[in-house]
Amino acid sequence: MKEKKIQDISEISELAEHIGETVTLHGSIYKIRKMKGFYFCRVRTPRDVIQCVCDRQELMEKLREEACVRITAEAVKEERAKAGVELYILSVVILSEPLENMPVVINQKEMSTSLENKLNFRPLTLRNEKERAIFRIQEGILRGFRHFFEEEHFVEIHTPKIVYAGAEGGANVFRVDYFGREAYLAQSPQFYKQMMAGVFERVYEVGPVFRAEKHDTARHINEYTGVDFEMGYIESFRELMALEVKMLRCALNMLSREYAHELELLQVTLPELPEENEPNAVSAVPGGAIPELKFTEAKELLAEELGLGEAAREQAYARHDFEPEEEKMLSEIIWRRTGSEFVFITHYPAAKRPFYVMEDPESPEETLSFDLIFRGLEITTGGQRIHDYNMQVEKMCRRGMNPEAFESYLMMHKHGMPPHGGLGLGLERFTARLLNFDNIRQAALFPRDIHRLTP
Amino acid sequence: MKEKKIQDISEISELAEHIGETVTLHGSIYKIRKMKGFYFCRVRTPRDVIQCVCDRQELMEKLREEACVRITAEAVKEERAKAGVELYILSVVILSEPLENMPVVINQKEMSTSLENKLNFRPLTLRNEKERAIFRIQEGILRGFRHFFEEEHFVEIHTPKIVYAGAEGGANVFRVDYFGREAYLAQSPQFYKQMMAGVFERVYEVGPVFRAEKHDTARHINEYTGVDFEMGYIESFRELMALEVKMLRCALNMLSREYAHELELLQVTLPELPEENEPNAVSAVPGGAIPELKFTEAKELLAEELGLGEAAREQAYARHDFEPEEEKMLSEIIWRRTGSEFVFITHYPAAKRPFYVMEDPESPEETLSFDLIFRGLEITTGGQRIHDYNMQVEKMCRRGMNPEAFESYLMMHKHGMPPHGGLGLGLERFTARLLNFDNIRQAALFPRDIHRLTP
Repeated sequence: MKEKKIQDISEISELAEHIGETVTLHGSIYKIRKMKGFYFCRVRTPRDVIQCVCDRQELMEKLREEACVRITAEAVKEERAKAGVELYILSVVILSEPLENMPVVINQKEMSTSLENKLNFRPLTLRNEKERAIFRIQEGILRGFRHFFEEEHFVEIHTPKIVYAGAEGGANVFRVDYFGREAYLAQSPQFYKQMMAGVFERVYEVGPVFRAEKHDTARHINEYTGVDFEMGYIESFRELMALEVKMLRCALNMLSREYAHELELLQVTLPELPEENEPNAVSAVPGGAIPELKFTEAKELLAEELGLGEAAREQAYARHDFEPEEEKMLSEIIWRRTGSEFVFITHYPAAKRPFYVMEDPESPEETLSFDLIFRGLEITTGGQRIHDYNMQVEKMCRRGMNPEAFESYLMMHKHGMPPHGGLGLGLERFTARLLNFDNIRQAALFPRDIHRLTP
Repeated sequence: MKEKKIQDISEISELAEHIGETVTLHGSIYKIRKMKGFYFCRVRTPRDVIQCVCDRQELMEKLREEACVRITAEAVKEERAKAGVELYILSVVILSEPLENMPVVINQKEMSTSLENKLNFRPLTLRNEKERAIFRIQEGILRGFRHFFEEEHFVEIHTPKIVYAGAEGGANVFRVDYFGREAYLAQSPQFYKQMMAGVFERVYEVGPVFRAEKHDTARHINEYTGVDFEMGYIESFRELMALEVKMLRCALNMLSREYAHELELLQVTLPELPEENEPNAVSAVPGGAIPELKFTEAKELLAEELGLGEAAREQAYARHDFEPEEEKMLSEIIWRRTGSEFVFITHYPAAKRPFYVMEDPESPEETLSFDLIFRGLEITTGGQRIHDYNMQVEKMCRRGMNPEAFESYLMMHKHGMPPHGGLGLGLERFTARLLNFDNIRQAALFPRDIHRLTP
């Protein structure tokens, strides 16, 4: 045999090329199983768990799970093994060793511990094959999004998270002591991305978003990763919706192209999504565009489904928003009727939308805004913004806000802004629904909630 | 002529393809100049300022600077014009108009106003051609970095910014009221990226970093964009340095390939950088590797340059760090001797490095760490971390820290971590030095400092 340089491998898919050769690999000892006369030794590499075989007891008995090692092995053809190759360990160098046994079992296919426990021991439980696959998927989603942003000429920006005022209003804002002055953590990059739409026309940001919401639900965390874009020169907020479909499509394509391993591991089926969104009715055929409903139509659909009487209907409309159960039910109805797991709800009542949202000139109680609901959960809020100074100031006054406190925000309106709009998508929410998790915390690396500040 | 669909153009480089055709463009009116019998009308598009010509007074006189418009124009061959084409305006649709004149002049090549004023009116001054080019360059740097990270199999992560403890220690940490509990804003993703190196081996994050430093200098802002990476299974911290060179190379290549327009506008010359870093001596030839000096060697070099006596030398060494003036002088000496605008300083004294930094086993007062100085300013700090639990706990105790308060951080050490290390680069600092700005604020979109919280 010709002499070759010893190859360092890290993925199972590389093995077949090296049959008959000596290879090296490095990683953590994931699991050792003693068999009759030999051992299976599974090694965790950055993306795989690679099984090796060893018949030298003295070598295996000094190895502990979670030790970090460099292994030299021979790749031997073996039909029964994964990828048709078995790795016979020749030698092991131990680089570091754990001090104690794991407080939770992480090397089973399924982790049989509570979510609470998973989160308490996050630095360890993320070493589990399936747990970490979640965050590979999340990386893949974002890579897809970024490819979309590059193709569509959005400029990436970084806006401050310590701010002088909350964009979304309300009480759910964290306070920071800023050298003795009161400041807040940004509830969204809203103000800044609008300003930047006046500079670059199309901008995007991926960054932390802070919401001091006190509710302790499966849908909320207090710090999440916002994927935001904003663009000028729109003629309708529907352009934003069409772009969002393209953006989601990019992410799904990225996943099916490069993350098949993780999708299989997590047993996930990607949702269907049209190539281009042509807004159409609820009667859309499967594989067609994302169905689109006005807020009032959606409320009616729900009332119908529930067989509500007149009074109950009025009450439901008056809430100006959906209860979580309503979002779930809506999703289900739409799925039944059209086969779509996504649904756009448009024209939310002005009463429940922030002050910068554009009202529908033909029906001022409604806004030129939308939410995207995916598998029963709102993952995006977007819409057209007010670009006219007088209109904005008038609306702020109507709401009892003091425009003077927003001087640096209103500067752009005063000096010329194009018609513009944008949206924000919660990365953890999208990941969670894509993977069919009940709790958003499963899709957050180190979640923060009203009770949790560690790890 | 064959009938064609009217093309919407936005860059000067597109014009030549459309000679003899009618085109549309949209943007803000940047500047109107009245000439003899006609007007020059410059339109700001996302990346260019495109000059149009119009001889219809009634049309031009109703146009205000910073109005947002859609223009229909004829592209006519004209040797004297930029790109050899002149755009003759046929019609203009006004989409929005400013309410007042600009409080600062933004449509001159050079903005002749103070930095203070530039920052006060940031939403407007960023509309200046050169001001916004800075942030295109910044986007380009980051695109280059991200290409590097993808190629080198780093996984992008998002770690919490509200944390239970500061990683870098000291008093310069912002406090947050977290539902009545005390929490902090992350001084770096240090703890989390280390944990994740135990999961994915190679990780990176781009995100905000918060430092409550009270000094008001041209080198400091209180919130900046950190570009962090961390990797396992290193044999030496020099691997990190070699990777950083690759990473910087990717950014510089991206800029020279896709940002020539902005580089020209800002009159920037990119620094030379070797294709691969082969660590070598200060005597390196121009275009060779980045020179590398030990901290003590650097101090000696400075003492030599300044002609310091024995006592003054001792004093300089005892500071365990460099003064800003020393960094500048070092850069200058290295540039004079080797032609390199970058220099690595290694083996910083343990006394001035955080508790997680690995000490040199052969000389425990020194650490396996480095800074990268670029054009007189430190832009990166990196090094190998302690991966052994006992070594880490012992060092914390030596420093009077309570390991129990860091239980969730030390979890990874206790249960097996590979030898690992990483680095953090300040995006604004790198941008500022690349563009030869004296003040880092010029390279921050909306800077935060001890006095500035708006816009």
